[in-house]
Amino acid sequence: MKRHLISAGDLTKDDALLILDTAEELARVSERSIKKLPTLRGRTVVNLFFEDSTRTRISFEAAAKRLSADVINFSAKGSSVSKGESLKDTALTLEAMGADAVVIRHSASGAPHRLATWVRGSVVNAGDGTHEHPTQALLDAFSMRRRLGSLEGRKVTIVGDVLHSRVARSNVLLLNTLGAEVTLVAPPTLLPVSVGTWPCEVSYDLDAVLPKSDAVMMLRVQKERMNAAYFPSEREYSRRYGLDRERFAKMPDEAIVMHPGPMNRGMEIAAEVADSARSTIVEQVANGVTIRMAVLYLLLGGETA
Amino acid sequence: MKRHLISAGDLTKDDALLILDTAEELARVSERSIKKLPTLRGRTVVNLFFEDSTRTRISFEAAAKRLSADVINFSAKGSSVSKGESLKDTALTLEAMGADAVVIRHSASGAPHRLATWVRGSVVNAGDGTHEHPTQALLDAFSMRRRLGSLEGRKVTIVGDVLHSRVARSNVLLLNTLGAEVTLVAPPTLLPVSVGTWPCEVSYDLDAVLPKSDAVMMLRVQKERMNAAYFPSEREYSRRYGLDRERFAKMPDEAIVMHPGPMNRGMEIAAEVADSARSTIVEQVANGVTIRMAVLYLLLGGETA
Amino acid sequence: MKRHLISAGDLTKDDALLILDTAEELARVSERSIKKLPTLRGRTVVNLFFEDSTRTRISFEAAAKRLSADVINFSAKGSSVSKGESLKDTALTLEAMGADAVVIRHSASGAPHRLATWVRGSVVNAGDGTHEHPTQALLDAFSMRRRLGSLEGRKVTIVGDVLHSRVARSNVLLLNTLGAEVTLVAPPTLLPVSVGTWPCEVSYDLDAVLPKSDAVMMLRVQKERMNAAYFPSEREYSRRYGLDRERFAKMPDEAIVMHPGPMNRGMEIAAEVADSARSTIVEQVANGVTIRMAVLYLLLGGETA
Repeated sequence: MKRHLISAGDLTKDDALLILDTAEELARVSERSIKKLPTLRGRTVVNLFFEDSTRTRISFEAAAKRLSADVINFSAKGSSVSKGESLKDTALTLEAMGADAVVIRHSASGAPHRLATWVRGSVVNAGDGTHEHPTQALLDAFSMRRRLGSLEGRKVTIVGDVLHSRVARSNVLLLNTLGAEVTLVAPPTLLPVSVGTWPCEVSYDLDAVLPKSDAVMMLRVQKERMNAAYFPSEREYSRRYGLDRERFAKMPDEAIVMHPGPMNRGMEIAAEVADSARSTIVEQVANGVTIRMAVLYLLLGGETA
Repeated sequence: MKRHLISAGDLTKDDALLILDTAEELARVSERSIKKLPTLRGRTVVNLFFEDSTRTRISFEAAAKRLSADVINFSAKGSSVSKGESLKDTALTLEAMGADAVVIRHSASGAPHRLATWVRGSVVNAGDGTHEHPTQALLDAFSMRRRLGSLEGRKVTIVGDVLHSRVARSNVLLLNTLGAEVTLVAPPTLLPVSVGTWPCEVSYDLDAVLPKSDAVMMLRVQKERMNAAYFPSEREYSRRYGLDRERFAKMPDEAIVMHPGPMNRGMEIAAEVADSARSTIVEQVANGVTIRMAVLYLLLGGETA
Repeated sequence: MKRHLISAGDLTKDDALLILDTAEELARVSERSIKKLPTLRGRTVVNLFFEDSTRTRISFEAAAKRLSADVINFSAKGSSVSKGESLKDTALTLEAMGADAVVIRHSASGAPHRLATWVRGSVVNAGDGTHEHPTQALLDAFSMRRRLGSLEGRKVTIVGDVLHSRVARSNVLLLNTLGAEVTLVAPPTLLPVSVGTWPCEVSYDLDAVLPKSDAVMMLRVQKERMNAAYFPSEREYSRRYGLDRERFAKMPDEAIVMHPGPMNRGMEIAAEVADSARSTIVEQVANGVTIRMAVLYLLLGGETA
């Protein structure tokens, strides 16, 4: 495995399977009520968050602490960064302070990649602009595999605002690597121009795709985008792309429903669908901590990697 | 003991004495300079604060860390919560991330109770609206017991803005359970309508009550309320309900003075009274950490509970 | 050594050398990849920051955690402090909660000194107003010593806005104690009136001083001061006091360049000078963690001090 985790697209199939298998082992250890492992004692993980994302930050923090690492949270607001310090100087500062890994969330696509060129420690992309969010894709794949078994040949449908979604992009890349077949369903205005080059199908007809899906992943609608010219009306969006009870009934009996959270219940997903036994939404959160433990373990623990 | 600590009124006398006795043991361990116990190693305590309260958050954080728990601070400001995520989804998220206990501070009375219906971990109410603040009442009772011995038959006077005080309500309930006799002293406009149903006396004449008090607890005046129509003028309040030197002299020689902090010196309490040897104000802070250790120990440690 | 570290001027030569030697030992331990020491297990260090300073806070946090102390971060914004609680009550609160050391950053010169009169734990000044920043001076001295050997008789030039710089003042005091000869170079409007009483030389001619310097320390220009009447124009400042390539060439071959960060590249220092092999800027950050470990170890660990 590489030293950094910047893009789901950088992972070979072997890399991805190693992460999933390691997470599986860690999940089993945790199920035996062993919640804390000494693996990363003495290592320091810095959460460098230029955007607020309490959920993702807490997930990485919990993962690092369960491996006994020290965690330092660095919120860029109000810091010298906001006084104009360059990302490079921030990076050098964190490295000089002894950060073994920097988990970075940034509004600019590509920031984690640039960071990785400056530091010797590991960089983990926790979401950069509209680009990628690789640990989200890994936790999604892990959640699917725990429910469905191998992803080889599985049909995964991703529904919603693909244009602004780093989650969608990372999932398409990783699922393709793992042998799944992905279909994106979105209004034409919410698909990127480049989507033709992505390793996936595109459809505008959710009802036609649902009966053939093993997993349906609903993307979060960003409320602040709903009034944009490219966005359908709220009612129209919900009617055509929302996963309500009727649509849910069209899915195969074993198919699962996913959402990266936080949900807009009643908008992209009905409350009863979100809370159904075939929804993996709560598991995804738990699996997020486990996957991040696996990633930190493999990047920093190192011996078996 | 129950799995949660939501209200001082939920505690039986046995529960309350178990917490106080456990705190006494922990205080003795701490006096032998053993500051860190391994009891909660591998457990995760989440501080979920929807209102700023640095003192209470730090007190719980210090308590959890001395028991070797991992602590994750979750300030709801700027998080997905403020973007409209429901309390329920936040609760499920924290649980899925492995929180063994959630310490919650919320502006809405009843929020901790609702939270407790959704999670399997323990919920500790760190103050909800004008409802309750049970660990404050426990630390107050602990502080009284360390100075005065058993609370059975002790006369406790609580003075100030009872209407908006969760501290007053929790104290009345707990002190009654422990056999103390409570008198509330407040301007009529600062008493709740329901006060007639509370297990305590009410008086409007502080000077008459002081000579019969074993402990006098001054409530904090919230500066932002001082200009409200129901609030007496600042001078009037201080003259009639402030604990100055003259009033302090009317208390029995062994009686103690309490305040939950932070104080408005010169307003509800004179500086020299606050700093006198019979004031427990600084002890209350130290006892707060000890009581919260006892609560977390009994809720999470479990074996002896 | 005293119980507190308030001012670089309080340190005797023996004190200062003890800190530098302890840091040297800790740096060697760290180079053997032992990143975590058990020395301060069970001790609590509180970072009490009334001003934002993420870098300094993180540096102390990393230092305390590497010594296995528990760290509690207390940002005064939004806390009861901002609701009018006095510094004294805050201090008593932190002490009662069991803080063994309080690291304080405050906008008022003298605040750490007052704090130290109220608490039994150790107080470490992490920057107070325009007064002092003693751990910065210690890390600078440590950085010089690691590059240049003993500071006895060394010539150190400090360039920039001395008037508003606690870094300059602490450095002058400490370097003088350690036997170095300091020259300040600044526009007359950016020198304090009292500078005539400081144990150093003053010059207005940077080019004349550079060839005789063993170390040149560039101070950060505070952007918010650039438009003040006493401040030269940006271009004028950079032209006369900026360390560009031409000026850098006038320094002796072995002389080093220092900056406390964060830098304004192109303003007080050229990017290529900052990044040269003779710049200690990144080392200073790493040395900051080491020096703060040494200070906390000597103040709290105690046995060998």
